[in-house]
Amino acid sequence: MTESFVVQSARGARQASLTLAALSLEVRNGALEAMAQAVETRREEILAANAQDRAAAQKLVDAGHITQAAAKRLDLSGAKLDGVIEGLRSVAALPDPLGCVQRATELDEGLNLYRVSCPIGVIAMIFESRPDALPQIASLCLKSGNAVLMKGGSEALGTNRVLARVLDEAARSAGAPAGWMTLLETREEIAEILDLDEWIDLIVPRGSNEFVRYIMDHTKIPVTGHRDGICHTYIHAAADGEKAVRIAVDAKCQYPAVCNATETLLFDRESVERVGRVVLEAFLERGVELRLCPETRAALAAKGFAVERCGEAVEADWKTEYLDLILSVRTVADLDAAIEHINRYGSHHTDAIVTEDAAAAERFLARVDSSSVVHNASTRFADGFRYGLGAELGISTEKIHSRGPVGLEGLTIYKYQLRGSGQVVADYSGPQARKYTHRTLPTG
Amino acid sequence: MTESFVVQSARGARQASLTLAALSLEVRNGALEAMAQAVETRREEILAANAQDRAAAQKLVDAGHITQAAAKRLDLSGAKLDGVIEGLRSVAALPDPLGCVQRATELDEGLNLYRVSCPIGVIAMIFESRPDALPQIASLCLKSGNAVLMKGGSEALGTNRVLARVLDEAARSAGAPAGWMTLLETREEIAEILDLDEWIDLIVPRGSNEFVRYIMDHTKIPVTGHRDGICHTYIHAAADGEKAVRIAVDAKCQYPAVCNATETLLFDRESVERVGRVVLEAFLERGVELRLCPETRAALAAKGFAVERCGEAVEADWKTEYLDLILSVRTVADLDAAIEHINRYGSHHTDAIVTEDAAAAERFLARVDSSSVVHNASTRFADGFRYGLGAELGISTEKIHSRGPVGLEGLTIYKYQLRGSGQVVADYSGPQARKYTHRTLPTG
Repeated sequence: MTESFVVQSARGARQASLTLAALSLEVRNGALEAMAQAVETRREEILAANAQDRAAAQKLVDAGHITQAAAKRLDLSGAKLDGVIEGLRSVAALPDPLGCVQRATELDEGLNLYRVSCPIGVIAMIFESRPDALPQIASLCLKSGNAVLMKGGSEALGTNRVLARVLDEAARSAGAPAGWMTLLETREEIAEILDLDEWIDLIVPRGSNEFVRYIMDHTKIPVTGHRDGICHTYIHAAADGEKAVRIAVDAKCQYPAVCNATETLLFDRESVERVGRVVLEAFLERGVELRLCPETRAALAAKGFAVERCGEAVEADWKTEYLDLILSVRTVADLDAAIEHINRYGSHHTDAIVTEDAAAAERFLARVDSSSVVHNASTRFADGFRYGLGAELGISTEKIHSRGPVGLEGLTIYKYQLRGSGQVVADYSGPQARKYTHRTLPTG
Repeated sequence: MTESFVVQSARGARQASLTLAALSLEVRNGALEAMAQAVETRREEILAANAQDRAAAQKLVDAGHITQAAAKRLDLSGAKLDGVIEGLRSVAALPDPLGCVQRATELDEGLNLYRVSCPIGVIAMIFESRPDALPQIASLCLKSGNAVLMKGGSEALGTNRVLARVLDEAARSAGAPAGWMTLLETREEIAEILDLDEWIDLIVPRGSNEFVRYIMDHTKIPVTGHRDGICHTYIHAAADGEKAVRIAVDAKCQYPAVCNATETLLFDRESVERVGRVVLEAFLERGVELRLCPETRAALAAKGFAVERCGEAVEADWKTEYLDLILSVRTVADLDAAIEHINRYGSHHTDAIVTEDAAAAERFLARVDSSSVVHNASTRFADGFRYGLGAELGISTEKIHSRGPVGLEGLTIYKYQLRGSGQVVADYSGPQARKYTHRTLPTG
């Protein structure tokens, strides 16, 4: 039987991954620099392909099939391509995620154990339409010594083809093994990938909640996905009013279309009385649609707030990621009820408390089961670049391997290297057994 | 619709996990001590149930349904129960895996980010017949703040029931929340668990390769399993002959029924000539059945080795976990061919090289894609206790989350705690944007 392109690619990626794992930092960074230079040199070729993708997308916009915003995301011209080049160089500048000694233990004299970071192996990445995602993902995988199979959005296929060719050729000319990167082009190829657990170690899908779940349901390969961000900002009884306004407004309005924007604002019985009106008026001023629970409505009507300008929140609102200038508002009894609401309805992504009460803040940070828990700051900070990871593969809502903003480290695992001088286990058992020393060694 | 016992238990475990995550080390260790005391106090009750299980098992032995060895593994009497009590106390003595600050970064003045270890949440553990596995698993989960659903072997059900009751009552009397631990009793309940991804975060199956694959195929919950250990010892051209004999014999013979025992011995063209005969004679002396590849047979026949006492290795031998005094032997061209054989046929578990050539050793350690790679020592060292982890949940053959021997750390993940003083993202964008400092803070 002839192997399909996908099987060949996956098998080739596995083979390449063994070479990649042993490439020096110099070779990996050299390949990244070669990639940056190739994008500079072959700018015209890339932009020509991109112009074709955009022209095709514009026809879809005109026919009403996709939005103008979706078409605009395809654009790689102008400063965008400079950003791609800069991105490749910034990944080269990051510290080496491989070969880090995470733990070192002397088991006995002359028998030392080292836990050392290493690549995972072969990663399959499935991502959205933006073509600048391809160089970003390729560079993160190369830096971390992983081979990668990539599938981008179909609207960007022409651009992605050229980008993949340019980057692959450049990296190979600088020492990366053939097969380190493969672009997949069709949905059928994705379906095929899901069965190839023999060669693929991890699938990272970026996309809609439904899409991520579909992938998880149809593969036994481990998946680290993104799900919805249903984030909360809780204004606690002891909140400072001014901070409450600033933080809540930023968390909702600074960029509402992203997963770390707040979708539900929580008050408790004290805070809704004290600062509810000033906080919600700030949202009305900014044109945010408010959906209030009955308790909030009653409390604020009594304070003279224009509740008639607000809608009603129903159960479904607590589970909805609006990604828009819409905010659901609920008043709960107290701190513990707020924590309970968040753990029940949230997506374990990012949740904030605004309070001047340190004990309340600690309780919130300890008991809210989310990848990022925030005290007196905006939920919008939850992001790999803002967190100082240097690069972001995505924001994981999993609780296995990587949680929250994921940088290069999320593409690594470790191996144990045991360095001996002839030791055997038989010497450590029986009546004359030698004792293990289990002495921690410096890892610097 | 009435909820089944399993759904109730999983939901209850999720609820309990939120409380467990916030229990102090003192409470968790107090509960472990209470568990140890309860096993001491209620020794008679436990041993009576164990005697019944053993009597039932003996009937199965007499009827030829199970082996005497399988029945013997059920035995908790004598020093075994003391070992259980000691095990509970040793878990209490381990350092706290929770609340460890893994990384601390100042994002800006008064805005600090901490990555802090925390429990995963709800773990489902499925394990073999030995009843001493139950207290071990329960104690590791409690120490790491996880709720646990457990299913043990059916032959040990009576003992497990009593143990679960004794441990649960003791832990709850010392402050653990109701529902922190549930014993499941039937296979149907396991099948039900596989669908409960809403409440269960991780499944850890210990058992046969087929069983682990079955679990992976039927759930979208993450699974960290054990697969076969097809481990290799490679005698390199520059091996010391005496070390080669000692290490190879220990790796196969010290305890052949375990996953870190060596199944295939590799020589290269030089080493088979130089030390092949003395190494293989050591195995024949110990009654090990040898299966030779044609190259090994030819090389050793020429050296006067009794090749007629050996069988022939076929392709299937390179993929077989004998767990017995059987060893397949292959001669490959050189170091790289040995690495290739191991990466191709092995199970990425534990593989060793015997050599006095430091460069060859480094190449082997870097390029063999296994959770433990060993230089001049026995593969049998790959074990949580020998590695100094203090406890072992199992040996993972996954490359995600945990790899190799897994201790308490394998039951933890992390959350990001962002501690601010009113910061919003809007201040860090636009023309007057504040700059992030991204200064590493001490974590001690």
